[in-house]
Amino acid sequence: MEIQLALDRLSIEEAIRITREAEKSIDLIEVGTSLIKEFGMEAVSKIREAFPNKTIVGDIKTIDNAIYEFDLCFNAGGDIATVMGVSSIHTIDACLNTAAKHGKKAMIDLLNTTIEQRVSLFQYKEAIFCEHISKDEQEMAGRNNMDKVSFVPSLEWAVAGGITIDSIENMIESESRPHIVIIGSAITKADHPGKIAAAFKEIIG
Amino acid sequence: MEIQLALDRLSIEEAIRITREAEKSIDLIEVGTSLIKEFGMEAVSKIREAFPNKTIVGDIKTIDNAIYEFDLCFNAGGDIATVMGVSSIHTIDACLNTAAKHGKKAMIDLLNTTIEQRVSLFQYKEAIFCEHISKDEQEMAGRNNMDKVSFVPSLEWAVAGGITIDSIENMIESESRPHIVIIGSAITKADHPGKIAAAFKEIIG
Repeated sequence: MEIQLALDRLSIEEAIRITREAEKSIDLIEVGTSLIKEFGMEAVSKIREAFPNKTIVGDIKTIDNAIYEFDLCFNAGGDIATVMGVSSIHTIDACLNTAAKHGKKAMIDLLNTTIEQRVSLFQYKEAIFCEHISKDEQEMAGRNNMDKVSFVPSLEWAVAGGITIDSIENMIESESRPHIVIIGSAITKADHPGKIAAAFKEIIG
Repeated sequence: MEIQLALDRLSIEEAIRITREAEKSIDLIEVGTSLIKEFGMEAVSKIREAFPNKTIVGDIKTIDNAIYEFDLCFNAGGDIATVMGVSSIHTIDACLNTAAKHGKKAMIDLLNTTIEQRVSLFQYKEAIFCEHISKDEQEMAGRNNMDKVSFVPSLEWAVAGGITIDSIENMIESESRPHIVIIGSAITKADHPGKIAAAFKEIIG
């Protein structure tokens, strides 16, 4: 299991400072949607520059205009870009093709997808799938049951949504474990991000 | 009918130059998703500054983190912000509330929504609804049948997706007309954006 640190609702400078503290314990750095919508691709390129050896995920949440947006993200230094599973299949297709053209990867965010959409998405064996409880659902509907998810074997899985030191213990114990756990505010809002990141790393082993 | 000029795949400077040429013939200025993902909220604030008296739509395509993103857009000078209809209803709800708090508006983009989602969205009488054929569907599936849409009366409607001088004629003639037509590359990629914008205005009367 790898740790993806999600950077959201921060300035680029704060994001870099926090990531520097947690750097040793994390594997992927996610430039969050809020950073991209606030600062644009500069958020991706500055974080790329600060961490030249980490895998950078641009959480650009593409839902149309696939080629243009994926090109933007990869050209700014991203290694993985995200597309919404609720998009038209033409958009998903173009994202996967653009990622392949760059020798990079697409992560398909399953937020709010129907069963039918999931079934048609699982054909994209080269993608990473992200099982995702949205921030708004966590805060407004109190939804936080990520530990009950079962992942389709043979596909690569990430999980996101309010993961804490307590909830990650359930994931470790469950039979089906994701490849990537995406952790945001549990690290970024901690008094000592480096210590919390190290604790997560210790737990997942 | 009002004209919303959608600015996409341009630098901020080009966007301002083109809008200046078309200014007299258009009603709303849309800062497109591609500008926001490339340049962040600076795209909204610079276009706000350049056109202090126009209605500015920030096509931020929110799908989570509603309050934060809508606050960002309105604080940067946007008058209307967009949310995807495929989002969780908690996200839609928070967008509408945040817009009301700012005395601004939300536009709900119906891209790829199911009938069930539409029915539950139509409760938001204070929103603007956008019937939208995505750029990827236009280019990759040749879909361009916007003239067959019928709009729920009592709601405010916008339409987007590859609208040209030819296709707008059908909309004018049809029984049910949208309140806002969103026009992008037909104006922004024209040799003389001002002349084409004037031609659109002439047609819609």
